[in-house]
Amino acid sequence: MSTDSDTETDASTETEPKCGASSSETTTDDNASKCGASTGDPNPSSSDCGASSSNTVSSSEEEEVGSTVEDFDAEPGRLLAVGLGPGQPEGMTQRARAALMEAEHIVGYTTYIDLIPDEITEAADELYDTPMCGEVSRTEEAIDRALAGNDVAIVGSGDPNVYALAGLALEIIESKGGTASMVDFEVVPGVPAAQSCGARLGAPLVNDTVTISLSDHLTPMEDIESRLEAVASEGFTIAIYNPWSRKRRENYQTCCEILLEHRDPETPVGVVHGAGREDERVEIVHLGGLPDLGETDLVDMTTTILVGNEDTYVWDDRMVTPRGYETKYDY
Amino acid sequence: MSTDSDTETDASTETEPKCGASSSETTTDDNASKCGASTGDPNPSSSDCGASSSNTVSSSEEEEVGSTVEDFDAEPGRLLAVGLGPGQPEGMTQRARAALMEAEHIVGYTTYIDLIPDEITEAADELYDTPMCGEVSRTEEAIDRALAGNDVAIVGSGDPNVYALAGLALEIIESKGGTASMVDFEVVPGVPAAQSCGARLGAPLVNDTVTISLSDHLTPMEDIESRLEAVASEGFTIAIYNPWSRKRRENYQTCCEILLEHRDPETPVGVVHGAGREDERVEIVHLGGLPDLGETDLVDMTTTILVGNEDTYVWDDRMVTPRGYETKYDY
Repeated sequence: MSTDSDTETDASTETEPKCGASSSETTTDDNASKCGASTGDPNPSSSDCGASSSNTVSSSEEEEVGSTVEDFDAEPGRLLAVGLGPGQPEGMTQRARAALMEAEHIVGYTTYIDLIPDEITEAADELYDTPMCGEVSRTEEAIDRALAGNDVAIVGSGDPNVYALAGLALEIIESKGGTASMVDFEVVPGVPAAQSCGARLGAPLVNDTVTISLSDHLTPMEDIESRLEAVASEGFTIAIYNPWSRKRRENYQTCCEILLEHRDPETPVGVVHGAGREDERVEIVHLGGLPDLGETDLVDMTTTILVGNEDTYVWDDRMVTPRGYETKYDY
Repeated sequence: MSTDSDTETDASTETEPKCGASSSETTTDDNASKCGASTGDPNPSSSDCGASSSNTVSSSEEEEVGSTVEDFDAEPGRLLAVGLGPGQPEGMTQRARAALMEAEHIVGYTTYIDLIPDEITEAADELYDTPMCGEVSRTEEAIDRALAGNDVAIVGSGDPNVYALAGLALEIIESKGGTASMVDFEVVPGVPAAQSCGARLGAPLVNDTVTISLSDHLTPMEDIESRLEAVASEGFTIAIYNPWSRKRRENYQTCCEILLEHRDPETPVGVVHGAGREDERVEIVHLGGLPDLGETDLVDMTTTILVGNEDTYVWDDRMVTPRGYETKYDY
């Protein structure tokens, strides 16, 4: 795994080179959404962003896909937001695996669909995947397929609640005049990137922890800075998602500056790049060395950074944040 | 599931009535630890807290268990800290299930051991479980069994990195003069309580989130209050662990007061009691009503509370925190 779906979310709208859609990408999203919201054009987004529909494509093209719940005659199917966890099949919960096995349609970012075991994807009637862009149109596609009567699973890495699509799905269902109950909407949780990466590093997150994304695509940078300022001087360990993208390298440097204003440069920091992928790299550095890492390939959108608190130490290549037992027990 | 292992951890040392060890419980821990750290008394903690060792108990009693690595002649086995996730078997990752199937000894709090499917516990050579107390002695027992040459899995609900035993295990291994590498120490992550409960509520945690425990057993209450003050006025959603115990009901009220100083009384709050258990209850209330809940059985050590941010709303019985897409996309 790399990080939770947010990685894809952000990359999809920020790192055009990965997307291949460049500046037209956002427009594509808007068109897909407006299209789906105004005309009921069949499969409005099936050709967006190089989307591909596998298995019985023909039935997909015949399938009625439209804008609001009024456009669907069929009894709605189900919609599940399924978290794949770290990304490898063994990191998936048995509940998630069962949900995907039961799903008639599986929708997701191509990279995540590719992570799903063949026996699951082959059992599905249809796969709908799009490359790294268009999470809004892709989520709407999943909802339209559920409203059209299909049991649909929309997948992402990590957990659907961590910078991911569970909320977007509910927002779009509401915008279509539907309800979550109508599609028996359910979230199937997964292991978030912070915990997956924490496990690779040892025990860096056993106390109060903050999870914060450096992406200012959907959150104003002044809010991100204010949140970092608020927590940096407290005893939180900090899990940083989306530390870097081609379009906003300065956010990373600003984050480092804020952290260094409040924490010792010697504070241990765990950096996990492309966790669970072939290019995975796990390094433990000091906070003082973090700024320079921004210029290396260790830090990109697939990197999660775990910043220790004042008690965190490194022992035997592990990052350890004491829970506090040593203050009460003798061992 | 209820919450991550912290629930057990805290309850074990705070809510004596559950523990049945009352004030002698902490002493028991200290004795067990000191004992294991000073005398090498065989199975120092196997009789603590009503501990029971199933399956081939005899071999357990013959097994050499001592204080430091020097006391063990055998080639060390493995030690894995395994997160069970929500608690039900289907919430466990396939990696966790495989790790438990491979483990020769499985060590954990009785309630969690009971949650493990029979085919797994029956496949183990030994089970060592203790009731709700003695996490330090239990963790030391797991380490001693690994140092004695056994492949051991110590289990807890949620994730081993969230208020759980991964850090304690590393601290005790170090105190014994051992290393994590010596026992191939590995953390197998699980779905934390915040995400399991978030899934039950809808999509309350899709943005920057803080996880904070109200237990002042291992963290000074002034630190907890300072952390709450720091984050309450920022846009974080807040996951509250260990909101209540018989010994510190006032922490809950103090937390409510701090949150209400900074957030609208109408802020949606998700309350999940005994999630995944027979007595599970999921309720969405307003922050203004939270103080009174402290007097009800909805809030206890098995409860996780998710406090929304200023954008969080309730729709169709779901708690939704917008990711921010509506500011960039039209749907």
